[in-house]
Amino acid sequence: MVHIAYQGEPGAYSEAAALSFDSKAEPSPRLSFDAVFDAVDAGEVTHGILPIENTIAGSIHRNYDLLVEHELPIVAEVKHSVVHNLIAFEGTEIDQIRRVYSHPKGLEQCERFLQTLNDIEIVATYDTAGSAKMIKEQGLTDTAAIASVRAAEIFGLRVIRQAVQDVADNFTRFLIISRDSVPLGAPDKTTVVFTVPNDPGALFKALSVFALRDIDLTKLESRPIPDRPFEYMFYADLSANRDDIRCERALMHLAEFAPSLRTLGSYPSWKGTEGQPSR
Amino acid sequence: MVHIAYQGEPGAYSEAAALSFDSKAEPSPRLSFDAVFDAVDAGEVTHGILPIENTIAGSIHRNYDLLVEHELPIVAEVKHSVVHNLIAFEGTEIDQIRRVYSHPKGLEQCERFLQTLNDIEIVATYDTAGSAKMIKEQGLTDTAAIASVRAAEIFGLRVIRQAVQDVADNFTRFLIISRDSVPLGAPDKTTVVFTVPNDPGALFKALSVFALRDIDLTKLESRPIPDRPFEYMFYADLSANRDDIRCERALMHLAEFAPSLRTLGSYPSWKGTEGQPSR
Repeated sequence: MVHIAYQGEPGAYSEAAALSFDSKAEPSPRLSFDAVFDAVDAGEVTHGILPIENTIAGSIHRNYDLLVEHELPIVAEVKHSVVHNLIAFEGTEIDQIRRVYSHPKGLEQCERFLQTLNDIEIVATYDTAGSAKMIKEQGLTDTAAIASVRAAEIFGLRVIRQAVQDVADNFTRFLIISRDSVPLGAPDKTTVVFTVPNDPGALFKALSVFALRDIDLTKLESRPIPDRPFEYMFYADLSANRDDIRCERALMHLAEFAPSLRTLGSYPSWKGTEGQPSR
Repeated sequence: MVHIAYQGEPGAYSEAAALSFDSKAEPSPRLSFDAVFDAVDAGEVTHGILPIENTIAGSIHRNYDLLVEHELPIVAEVKHSVVHNLIAFEGTEIDQIRRVYSHPKGLEQCERFLQTLNDIEIVATYDTAGSAKMIKEQGLTDTAAIASVRAAEIFGLRVIRQAVQDVADNFTRFLIISRDSVPLGAPDKTTVVFTVPNDPGALFKALSVFALRDIDLTKLESRPIPDRPFEYMFYADLSANRDDIRCERALMHLAEFAPSLRTLGSYPSWKGTEGQPSR
Protein backbone atom coordinates (compact mmCIF):
# COMPACT_ATOMS: atom_id res chain seq x y z
CA MET A 1 0.00 0.00 0.00
CA VAL A 2 1.44 3.36 -1.06
CA HIS A 3 0.60 5.98 1.56
CA ILE A 4 1.87 9.25 0.18
CA ALA A 5 2.22 12.65 1.90
CA TYR A 6 1.74 15.80 -0.20
CA GLN A 7 1.76 19.52 0.53
CA GLY A 8 -1.63 21.21 0.40
CA GLU A 9 -5.27 20.47 0.88
CA PRO A 10 -7.38 17.85 -0.91
CA GLY A 11 -7.73 19.12 -4.47
CA ALA A 12 -4.06 20.19 -4.64
CA TYR A 13 -2.15 19.42 -7.83
CA SER A 14 0.31 17.30 -5.82
CA GLU A 15 -2.56 15.03 -4.75
CA ALA A 16 -3.66 14.63 -8.39
CA ALA A 17 -0.07 13.84 -9.41
CA ALA A 18 0.18 11.16 -6.70
CA LEU A 19 -3.01 9.55 -7.99
CA SER A 20 -1.85 9.77 -11.59
CA PHE A 21 1.29 7.85 -10.56
CA ASP A 22 -0.67 5.23 -8.66
CA SER A 23 -4.46 5.38 -8.72
CA LYS A 24 -4.59 3.12 -5.63
CA ALA A 25 -2.27 5.33 -3.56
CA GLU A 26 -3.65 6.88 -0.39
CA PRO A 27 -2.75 10.58 -0.36
CA SER A 28 -2.20 12.28 2.99
CA PRO A 29 -2.20 16.12 3.18
CA ARG A 30 0.48 18.15 4.99
CA LEU A 31 0.82 21.88 5.58
CA SER A 32 4.29 22.42 4.13
CA PHE A 33 7.04 20.79 2.09
CA ASP A 34 9.03 20.46 5.33
CA ALA A 35 6.13 18.53 6.86
CA VAL A 36 6.09 16.15 3.87
CA PHE A 37 9.78 15.36 4.41
CA ASP A 38 9.19 15.00 8.16
CA ALA A 39 6.26 12.59 7.62
CA VAL A 40 8.43 10.34 5.43
CA ASP A 41 11.37 10.59 7.86
CA ALA A 42 9.11 9.58 10.76
CA GLY A 43 7.55 6.67 8.87
CA GLU A 44 4.03 8.14 9.12
CA VAL A 45 3.71 7.49 5.37
CA THR A 46 5.57 5.23 2.93
CA HIS A 47 6.28 8.00 0.39
CA GLY A 48 6.17 11.74 -0.16
CA ILE A 49 5.51 13.65 -3.38
CA LEU A 50 7.06 17.06 -4.08
CA PRO A 51 6.84 19.47 -7.02
CA ILE A 52 10.37 20.15 -8.26
CA GLU A 53 9.88 22.21 -11.40
CA ASN A 54 7.16 23.82 -13.44
CA THR A 55 7.53 24.54 -17.13
CA ILE A 56 6.39 28.16 -16.65
CA ALA A 57 7.52 29.20 -13.19
CA GLY A 58 10.75 27.18 -13.04
CA SER A 59 12.24 25.21 -10.18
CA ILE A 60 10.79 24.91 -6.70
CA HIS A 61 14.09 25.70 -5.00
CA ARG A 62 12.91 25.00 -1.50
CA ASN A 63 12.51 21.33 -2.42
CA TYR A 64 16.03 21.16 -3.86
CA ASP A 65 17.28 22.52 -0.53
CA LEU A 66 15.19 20.01 1.44
CA LEU A 67 16.46 17.07 -0.64
CA VAL A 68 19.97 17.99 0.50
CA GLU A 69 18.98 18.53 4.16
CA HIS A 70 17.26 15.14 4.38
CA GLU A 71 18.54 11.68 3.50
CA LEU A 72 15.45 10.51 1.62
CA PRO A 73 16.19 9.09 -1.83
CA ILE A 74 14.19 9.95 -4.94
CA VAL A 75 12.45 6.75 -6.09
CA ALA A 76 10.27 8.01 -8.98
CA GLU A 77 9.15 11.08 -10.91
CA VAL A 78 5.75 12.16 -12.29
CA LYS A 79 4.98 14.79 -14.91
CA HIS A 80 1.54 16.24 -14.53
CA SER A 81 -0.41 18.78 -16.56
CA VAL A 82 -1.64 21.77 -14.53
CA VAL A 83 -4.77 23.72 -15.42
CA HIS A 84 -5.51 26.74 -13.22
CA ASN A 85 -8.99 28.15 -12.80
CA LEU A 86 -10.48 31.24 -11.18
CA ILE A 87 -12.78 29.97 -8.44
CA ALA A 88 -15.25 31.78 -6.14
CA PHE A 89 -18.62 31.50 -4.39
CA GLU A 90 -21.68 30.77 -6.49
CA GLY A 91 -23.09 34.21 -7.29
CA THR A 92 -19.77 36.09 -7.16
CA GLU A 93 -19.24 37.74 -10.57
CA ILE A 94 -15.81 38.50 -11.96
CA ASP A 95 -16.18 42.30 -11.47
CA GLN A 96 -17.07 41.83 -7.78
CA ILE A 97 -13.73 40.23 -7.01
CA ARG A 98 -11.47 42.40 -4.87
CA ARG A 99 -8.87 39.81 -3.84
CA VAL A 100 -7.27 36.74 -5.43
CA TYR A 101 -5.67 34.06 -3.25
CA SER A 102 -3.25 31.39 -4.42
CA HIS A 103 0.15 29.83 -3.91
CA PRO A 104 2.91 32.16 -5.22
CA LYS A 105 3.72 29.71 -8.05
CA GLY A 106 0.04 29.61 -9.07
CA LEU A 107 -0.10 33.40 -9.11
CA GLU A 108 3.12 33.53 -11.14
CA GLN A 109 1.69 31.15 -13.74
CA CYS A 110 -1.44 33.31 -14.20
CA GLU A 111 0.31 36.68 -14.10
CA ARG A 112 -0.98 37.96 -17.46
CA PHE A 113 -4.56 36.96 -16.67
CA LEU A 114 -4.38 38.62 -13.23
CA GLN A 115 -3.18 41.86 -14.82
CA THR A 116 -6.44 42.02 -16.81
CA LEU A 117 -8.48 42.22 -13.57
CA ASN A 118 -9.04 45.74 -12.23
CA ASP A 119 -8.42 46.94 -8.71
CA ILE A 120 -7.66 43.63 -7.11
CA GLU A 121 -5.29 42.67 -4.35
CA ILE A 122 -3.15 39.58 -5.03
CA VAL A 123 -2.53 37.56 -1.87
CA ALA A 124 0.06 34.78 -1.71
CA THR A 125 -1.09 31.80 0.37
CA TYR A 126 0.42 28.43 1.29
CA ASP A 127 -1.62 26.39 -1.19
CA THR A 128 -3.87 26.57 -4.26
CA ALA A 129 -6.60 24.28 -2.89
CA GLY A 130 -6.08 25.80 0.57
CA SER A 131 -7.07 29.17 -0.91
CA ALA A 132 -10.40 27.69 -2.01
CA LYS A 133 -10.81 26.29 1.50
CA MET A 134 -10.18 29.70 3.11
CA ILE A 135 -12.76 31.37 0.83
CA LYS A 136 -15.33 28.75 1.80
CA GLU A 137 -14.61 28.68 5.53
CA GLN A 138 -14.41 32.44 5.94
CA GLY A 139 -17.35 33.15 3.60
CA LEU A 140 -15.30 35.52 1.43
CA THR A 141 -17.76 36.51 -1.32
CA ASP A 142 -15.43 39.18 -2.76
CA THR A 143 -12.45 36.84 -3.07
CA ALA A 144 -11.41 34.30 -5.69
CA ALA A 145 -8.79 31.55 -5.71
CA ILE A 146 -6.54 30.18 -8.45
CA ALA A 147 -6.88 26.40 -8.10
CA SER A 148 -7.99 23.16 -9.73
CA VAL A 149 -11.58 22.28 -10.73
CA ARG A 150 -11.39 19.51 -8.17
CA ALA A 151 -10.66 22.06 -5.41
CA ALA A 152 -13.81 23.97 -6.47
CA GLU A 153 -15.84 20.75 -6.27
CA ILE A 154 -14.41 19.72 -2.90
CA PHE A 155 -15.08 23.10 -1.28
CA GLY A 156 -18.43 23.75 -3.01
CA LEU A 157 -17.28 26.73 -5.05
CA ARG A 158 -17.83 27.62 -8.70
CA VAL A 159 -15.34 27.96 -11.55
CA ILE A 160 -15.74 31.52 -12.85
CA ARG A 161 -13.08 31.29 -15.54
CA GLN A 162 -11.40 28.11 -16.78
CA ALA A 163 -7.77 27.58 -17.76
CA VAL A 164 -6.45 31.01 -16.78
CA GLN A 165 -2.76 30.12 -16.87
CA ASP A 166 -0.62 32.24 -19.20
CA VAL A 167 0.62 29.31 -21.27
CA ALA A 168 -1.70 26.45 -22.23
CA ASP A 169 0.91 23.68 -21.87
CA ASN A 170 1.76 23.96 -18.21
CA PHE A 171 3.42 20.92 -16.65
CA THR A 172 4.83 20.26 -13.23
CA ARG A 173 7.41 17.59 -12.56
CA PHE A 174 7.09 15.91 -9.16
CA LEU A 175 9.58 13.71 -7.31
CA ILE A 176 8.54 10.83 -5.08
CA ILE A 177 10.74 10.25 -2.04
CA SER A 178 10.89 7.34 0.40
CA ARG A 179 12.97 6.08 3.33
CA ASP A 180 13.35 2.87 1.39
CA SER A 181 15.74 3.49 -1.50
CA VAL A 182 14.17 0.89 -3.80
CA PRO A 183 13.14 2.76 -6.96
CA LEU A 184 9.53 2.38 -8.13
CA GLY A 185 10.50 0.78 -11.46
CA ALA A 186 13.67 0.24 -13.49
CA PRO A 187 15.95 3.27 -13.01
CA ASP A 188 17.12 5.15 -16.11
CA LYS A 189 17.58 8.58 -14.55
CA THR A 190 19.88 9.77 -11.74
CA THR A 191 19.90 13.03 -9.81
CA VAL A 192 23.15 14.22 -8.25
CA VAL A 193 24.22 17.33 -6.36
CA PHE A 194 27.82 18.53 -6.39
CA THR A 195 30.08 21.49 -5.78
CA VAL A 196 33.05 22.45 -7.90
CA PRO A 197 36.40 23.91 -6.86
CA ASN A 198 36.60 27.70 -7.10
CA ASP A 199 38.74 27.53 -10.27
CA PRO A 200 38.11 28.87 -13.78
CA GLY A 201 36.55 26.20 -15.97
CA ALA A 202 35.58 24.01 -13.00
CA LEU A 203 31.94 23.55 -14.06
CA PHE A 204 33.04 22.75 -17.61
CA LYS A 205 35.34 20.07 -16.22
CA ALA A 206 32.50 18.67 -14.11
CA LEU A 207 30.17 18.41 -17.10
CA SER A 208 32.95 16.79 -19.15
CA VAL A 209 32.76 13.63 -17.02
CA PHE A 210 29.24 13.09 -18.39
CA ALA A 211 29.68 14.47 -21.92
CA LEU A 212 32.80 12.39 -22.59
CA ARG A 213 30.77 9.28 -21.70
CA ASP A 214 27.71 10.29 -23.76
CA ILE A 215 25.54 10.69 -20.66
CA ASP A 216 22.94 13.35 -21.34
CA LEU A 217 22.11 16.03 -18.79
CA THR A 218 18.36 16.66 -18.85
CA LYS A 219 18.58 19.45 -16.28
CA LEU A 220 21.19 21.55 -14.52
CA GLU A 221 20.18 23.81 -11.65
CA SER A 222 22.41 26.03 -9.54
CA ARG A 223 21.67 27.04 -5.93
CA PRO A 224 23.66 29.32 -3.65
CA ILE A 225 25.76 27.84 -0.85
CA PRO A 226 24.48 29.87 2.13
CA ASP A 227 27.73 30.38 4.03
CA ARG A 228 29.89 30.88 0.93
CA PRO A 229 28.57 34.03 -0.79
CA PHE A 230 28.45 33.80 -4.59
CA GLU A 231 29.45 30.14 -4.71
CA TYR A 232 27.00 27.52 -5.95
CA MET A 233 25.86 23.92 -5.67
CA PHE A 234 24.79 22.22 -8.88
CA TYR A 235 21.94 19.74 -9.25
CA ALA A 236 22.13 17.59 -12.36
CA ASP A 237 19.64 15.11 -13.80
CA LEU A 238 21.48 12.43 -15.78
CA SER A 239 19.73 10.16 -18.27
CA ALA A 240 21.34 6.99 -16.95
CA ASN A 241 20.93 4.39 -14.23
CA ARG A 242 23.43 4.96 -11.43
CA ASP A 243 24.49 1.29 -11.69
CA ASP A 244 25.23 1.63 -15.39
CA ILE A 245 29.03 1.26 -15.62
CA ARG A 246 29.38 4.49 -17.64
CA CYS A 247 27.46 6.39 -14.97
CA GLU A 248 29.43 4.79 -12.12
CA ARG A 249 32.68 5.76 -13.80
CA ALA A 250 31.49 9.29 -14.55
CA LEU A 251 30.58 9.82 -10.88
CA MET A 252 33.92 8.38 -9.71
CA HIS A 253 35.65 10.73 -12.15
CA LEU A 254 33.66 13.70 -10.81
CA ALA A 255 34.48 12.73 -7.22
CA GLU A 256 38.20 12.97 -8.06
CA PHE A 257 37.98 16.78 -8.10
CA ALA A 258 34.53 17.82 -6.80
CA PRO A 259 34.75 18.92 -3.13
CA SER A 260 31.35 17.30 -2.61
CA LEU A 261 29.15 14.90 -4.57
CA ARG A 262 25.98 13.09 -3.53
CA THR A 263 23.49 10.96 -5.42
CA LEU A 264 19.94 11.97 -4.50
CA GLY A 265 18.40 8.97 -6.22
CA SER A 266 18.30 6.75 -9.29
CA TYR A 267 14.78 6.13 -10.54
CA PRO A 268 12.57 5.51 -13.59
CA SER A 269 11.92 8.57 -15.74
CA TRP A 270 8.24 9.33 -16.33
CA LYS A 271 6.98 7.25 -19.26
CA GLY A 272 3.27 8.10 -19.06
CA THR A 273 1.59 10.95 -20.80
CA GLU A 274 1.85 14.20 -18.93
CA GLY A 275 -1.28 13.10 -17.09
CA GLN A 276 -4.83 14.07 -17.74
CA PRO A 277 -5.20 17.81 -17.28
CA SER A 278 -6.15 17.99 -13.60
CA ARG A 279 -9.18 20.00 -14.71
CA MET B 1 22.32 63.28 -12.66
CA VAL B 2 21.50 59.64 -11.99
CA HIS B 3 17.77 59.26 -11.48
CA ILE B 4 17.22 55.62 -10.58
CA ALA B 5 13.96 53.65 -10.29
CA TYR B 6 13.75 50.84 -7.72
CA GLN B 7 11.06 48.42 -6.57
CA GLY B 8 9.63 49.08 -3.14
CA GLU B 9 9.06 51.92 -0.73
CA PRO B 10 11.62 54.32 0.74
CA GLY B 11 13.72 52.22 3.12
CA ALA B 12 13.87 49.29 0.67
CA TYR B 13 17.18 47.47 0.27
CA SER B 14 17.19 48.38 -3.45
CA GLU B 15 17.14 52.06 -2.53
CA ALA B 16 20.11 51.56 -0.18
CA ALA B 17 21.99 49.66 -2.91
CA ALA B 18 21.38 52.51 -5.39
CA LEU B 19 22.81 55.02 -2.88
CA SER B 20 25.77 52.76 -2.11
CA PHE B 21 26.56 52.74 -5.85
CA ASP B 22 26.20 56.52 -6.17
CA SER B 23 25.51 58.55 -3.05
CA LYS B 24 24.30 61.46 -5.22
CA ALA B 25 21.77 59.34 -7.13
CA GLU B 26 18.11 60.28 -6.85
CA PRO B 27 16.11 57.09 -6.12
CA SER B 28 12.55 56.88 -7.38
CA PRO B 29 10.21 54.18 -5.94
CA ARG B 30 8.04 51.89 -8.10
CA LEU B 31 5.48 49.25 -7.14
CA SER B 32 6.92 46.29 -9.08
CA PHE B 33 9.96 45.09 -11.03
CA ASP B 34 7.87 45.47 -14.21
CA ALA B 35 7.26 49.12 -13.32
CA VAL B 36 11.02 49.68 -12.88
CA PHE B 37 11.65 48.35 -16.40
CA ASP B 38 8.75 50.43 -17.76
CA ALA B 39 10.06 53.62 -16.10
CA VAL B 40 13.47 53.13 -17.75
CA ASP B 41 11.87 52.24 -21.10
CA ALA B 42 9.72 55.38 -20.99
CA GLY B 43 12.65 57.64 -20.05
CA GLU B 44 11.03 58.68 -16.73
CA VAL B 45 14.36 57.86 -15.07
CA THR B 46 17.93 57.47 -16.36
CA HIS B 47 18.48 54.07 -14.69
CA GLY B 48 16.80 51.23 -12.89
CA ILE B 49 18.18 48.96 -10.15
CA LEU B 50 17.05 45.34 -9.72
CA PRO B 51 17.99 42.58 -7.28
CA ILE B 52 19.19 39.58 -9.30
CA GLU B 53 20.46 37.14 -6.68
CA ASN B 54 20.73 36.75 -2.96
CA THR B 55 23.35 34.58 -1.31
CA ILE B 56 20.70 32.80 0.80
CA ALA B 57 17.50 32.76 -1.25
CA GLY B 58 19.09 32.43 -4.70
CA SER B 59 18.16 34.11 -7.96
CA ILE B 60 15.29 36.53 -8.45
CA HIS B 61 14.03 34.74 -11.56
CA ARG B 62 11.41 37.31 -12.46
CA ASN B 63 14.18 39.80 -13.18
CA TYR B 64 16.01 37.33 -15.42
CA ASP B 65 12.77 36.96 -17.38
CA LEU B 66 12.27 40.74 -17.57
CA LEU B 67 15.84 41.29 -18.82
CA VAL B 68 14.98 39.07 -21.77
CA GLU B 69 11.58 40.68 -22.41
CA HIS B 70 13.04 44.20 -22.47
CA GLU B 71 15.95 45.62 -24.48
CA LEU B 72 17.60 47.49 -21.61
CA PRO B 73 21.31 46.73 -21.21
CA ILE B 74 22.98 46.04 -17.88
CA VAL B 75 25.44 48.88 -17.24
CA ALA B 76 26.67 48.09 -13.70
CA GLU B 77 26.29 45.76 -10.72
CA VAL B 78 26.22 46.41 -6.95
CA LYS B 79 26.70 43.92 -4.13
CA HIS B 80 24.99 45.00 -0.95
CA SER B 81 24.85 43.51 2.53
CA VAL B 82 21.31 42.84 3.77
CA VAL B 83 20.39 42.89 7.46
CA HIS B 84 16.79 42.01 8.25
CA ASN B 85 15.07 43.15 11.43
CA LEU B 86 11.76 42.43 13.12
CA ILE B 87 9.90 45.73 13.25
CA ALA B 88 6.62 46.74 14.91
CA PHE B 89 4.81 49.57 16.71
CA GLU B 90 6.39 51.04 19.82
CA GLY B 91 4.84 49.04 22.68
CA THR B 92 4.23 45.82 20.71
CA GLU B 93 6.10 43.01 22.45
CA ILE B 94 7.36 39.95 20.64
CA ASP B 95 4.74 37.63 22.21
CA GLN B 96 1.89 39.90 21.10
CA ILE B 97 2.74 39.44 17.44
CA ARG B 98 0.16 37.41 15.51
CA ARG B 99 1.25 38.21 11.95
CA VAL B 100 4.54 38.86 10.16
CA TYR B 101 4.59 40.73 6.83
CA SER B 102 7.44 40.80 4.36
CA HIS B 103 8.48 40.17 0.79
CA PRO B 104 8.67 36.39 0.09
CA LYS B 105 12.48 36.61 -0.27
CA GLY B 106 12.73 38.39 3.10
CA LEU B 107 10.59 35.70 4.73
CA GLU B 108 12.69 32.97 3.09
CA GLN B 109 15.91 34.48 4.47
CA CYS B 110 14.52 34.55 8.04
CA GLU B 111 12.81 31.17 7.92
CA ARG B 112 14.56 29.65 10.96
CA PHE B 113 13.91 32.73 13.10
CA LEU B 114 10.23 32.78 12.07
CA GLN B 115 9.85 29.14 13.09
CA THR B 116 10.82 30.13 16.66
CA LEU B 117 7.76 32.41 16.93
CA ASN B 118 4.60 30.71 18.16
CA ASP B 119 1.18 30.87 16.59
CA ILE B 120 1.89 33.44 13.95
CA GLU B 121 0.62 33.87 10.44
CA ILE B 122 3.29 34.60 7.81
CA VAL B 123 2.00 36.94 5.10
CA ALA B 124 3.89 37.52 1.85
CA THR B 125 3.71 41.14 0.66
CA TYR B 126 5.13 43.06 -2.30
CA ASP B 127 7.95 44.73 -0.37
CA THR B 128 9.94 44.70 2.89
CA ALA B 129 9.70 48.45 3.56
CA GLY B 130 6.14 48.41 2.19
CA SER B 131 5.25 45.97 4.98
CA ALA B 132 6.43 48.52 7.55
CA LYS B 133 4.34 51.15 5.76
CA MET B 134 1.20 48.94 5.90
CA ILE B 135 1.64 48.35 9.63
CA LYS B 136 1.93 52.09 10.22
CA GLU B 137 -0.92 53.17 7.96
CA GLN B 138 -3.36 50.51 9.11
CA GLY B 139 -2.37 50.79 12.80
CA LEU B 140 -1.62 47.05 13.06
CA THR B 141 -0.39 46.68 16.63
CA ASP B 142 -0.36 42.85 16.49
CA THR B 143 1.72 42.70 13.31
CA ALA B 144 5.46 42.90 12.64
CA ALA B 145 7.47 43.37 9.45
CA ILE B 146 10.81 41.98 8.34
CA ALA B 147 12.64 45.04 6.94
CA SER B 148 15.61 47.38 7.28
CA VAL B 149 16.31 49.66 10.25
CA ARG B 150 15.87 52.56 7.85
CA ALA B 151 12.32 51.39 7.04
CA ALA B 152 11.55 51.41 10.80
CA GLU B 153 12.88 54.97 11.08
CA ILE B 154 11.01 56.22 8.00
CA PHE B 155 7.67 54.80 9.17
CA GLY B 156 8.11 55.59 12.88
CA LEU B 157 8.28 51.97 14.05
CA ARG B 158 10.61 50.21 16.48
CA VAL B 159 13.13 47.43 15.90
CA ILE B 160 12.09 44.57 18.21
CA ARG B 161 14.82 42.16 17.18
CA GLN B 162 17.90 43.01 15.13
CA ALA B 163 19.60 40.91 12.44
CA VAL B 164 17.06 38.08 12.30
CA GLN B 165 18.27 36.58 9.01
CA ASP B 166 19.28 32.90 9.18
CA VAL B 167 22.83 33.49 7.95
CA ALA B 168 24.85 36.51 9.11
CA ASP B 169 26.57 37.13 5.75
CA ASN B 170 23.58 37.87 3.57
CA PHE B 171 24.34 39.71 0.34
CA THR B 172 22.20 40.73 -2.58
CA ARG B 173 23.62 41.45 -6.01
CA PHE B 174 21.79 44.15 -7.93
CA LEU B 175 21.98 45.04 -11.63
CA ILE B 176 21.67 48.60 -12.94
CA ILE B 177 19.91 48.93 -16.30
CA SER B 178 19.64 51.90 -18.66
CA ARG B 179 18.35 52.77 -22.13
CA ASP B 180 21.81 54.11 -22.84
CA SER B 181 24.18 51.15 -23.23
CA VAL B 182 27.28 53.02 -21.97
CA PRO B 183 28.54 51.03 -18.96
CA LEU B 184 29.12 52.90 -15.70
CA GLY B 185 32.86 52.17 -15.61
CA ALA B 186 35.33 49.96 -17.49
CA PRO B 187 33.58 46.65 -18.33
CA ASP B 188 35.20 43.42 -17.13
CA LYS B 189 32.05 41.30 -16.85
CA THR B 190 29.50 40.24 -19.49
CA THR B 191 26.07 38.63 -19.07
CA VAL B 192 24.70 36.52 -21.92
CA VAL B 193 21.58 34.41 -22.39
CA PHE B 194 21.53 31.49 -24.80
CA THR B 195 19.71 28.30 -25.72
CA VAL B 196 21.37 25.07 -26.79
CA PRO B 197 20.25 22.51 -29.36
CA ASN B 198 18.31 19.58 -27.92
CA ASP B 199 21.31 17.22 -28.27
CA PRO B 200 23.26 15.24 -25.68
CA GLY B 201 26.29 17.20 -24.49
CA ALA B 202 24.98 20.50 -25.89
CA LEU B 203 25.49 22.49 -22.67
CA PHE B 204 28.97 21.03 -22.29
CA LYS B 205 29.79 22.21 -25.83
CA ALA B 206 28.41 25.65 -25.03
CA LEU B 207 30.59 26.00 -21.93
CA SER B 208 33.62 24.77 -23.87
CA VAL B 209 33.69 27.99 -25.94
CA PHE B 210 34.50 29.85 -22.72
CA ALA B 211 36.62 27.23 -20.94
CA LEU B 212 38.88 26.67 -23.97
CA ARG B 213 39.61 30.41 -23.96
CA ASP B 214 40.17 30.64 -20.18
CA ILE B 215 37.10 32.81 -19.67
CA ASP B 216 35.69 32.14 -16.21
CA LEU B 217 31.96 31.68 -15.64
CA THR B 218 31.03 33.35 -12.35
CA LYS B 219 27.40 32.21 -12.58
CA LEU B 220 25.21 29.89 -14.64
CA GLU B 221 21.46 29.99 -14.22
CA SER B 222 18.86 27.95 -16.09
CA ARG B 223 15.26 29.07 -16.71
CA PRO B 224 12.47 27.18 -18.44
CA ILE B 225 11.41 28.17 -21.96
CA PRO B 226 7.64 28.64 -21.44
CA ASP B 227 6.37 27.15 -24.70
CA ARG B 228 8.90 24.33 -24.86
CA PRO B 229 8.26 22.14 -21.79
CA PHE B 230 11.43 20.85 -20.08
CA GLU B 231 13.78 22.89 -22.29
CA TYR B 232 15.89 25.66 -20.79
CA MET B 233 17.53 29.02 -21.43
CA PHE B 234 20.91 29.58 -19.79
CA TYR B 235 22.14 32.84 -18.31
CA ALA B 236 25.91 33.05 -17.92
CA ASP B 237 28.07 35.71 -16.27
CA LEU B 238 31.51 35.81 -17.91
CA SER B 239 34.50 37.46 -16.27
CA ALA B 240 35.54 39.34 -19.42
CA ASN B 241 34.75 42.51 -21.33
CA ARG B 242 32.59 41.76 -24.37
CA ASP B 243 35.09 43.71 -26.55
CA ASP B 244 37.99 41.59 -25.36
CA ILE B 245 39.02 39.59 -28.45
CA ARG B 246 38.82 36.27 -26.53
CA CYS B 247 35.28 37.03 -25.45
CA GLU B 248 34.26 38.19 -28.95
CA ARG B 249 35.60 34.96 -30.42
CA ALA B 250 33.97 32.81 -27.74
CA LEU B 251 30.58 34.40 -28.43
CA MET B 252 31.02 33.98 -32.21
CA HIS B 253 31.92 30.36 -31.57
CA LEU B 254 28.81 29.87 -29.41
CA ALA B 255 26.62 31.52 -32.07
CA GLU B 256 27.78 28.88 -34.58
CA PHE B 257 25.59 26.26 -32.89
CA ALA B 258 23.37 27.99 -30.29
CA PRO B 259 19.84 28.51 -31.66
CA SER B 260 19.76 31.85 -29.80
CA LEU B 261 22.34 34.05 -28.11
CA ARG B 262 22.01 37.56 -26.73
CA THR B 263 24.34 39.78 -24.74
CA LEU B 264 22.44 41.45 -21.90
CA GLY B 265 25.28 43.83 -21.08
CA SER B 266 29.00 44.25 -20.50
CA TYR B 267 29.77 46.23 -17.37
CA PRO B 268 32.19 46.76 -14.47
CA SER B 269 32.08 44.09 -11.79
CA TRP B 270 31.49 45.44 -8.26
CA LYS B 271 34.84 46.49 -6.77
CA GLY B 272 33.57 48.09 -3.56
CA THR B 273 33.07 46.35 -0.31
CA GLU B 274 29.74 44.56 -0.07
CA GLY B 275 28.32 47.88 1.13
CA GLN B 276 27.71 49.02 4.63
CA PRO B 277 25.15 46.74 6.22
CA SER B 278 21.94 48.57 5.39
CA ARG B 279 21.25 48.52 9.14
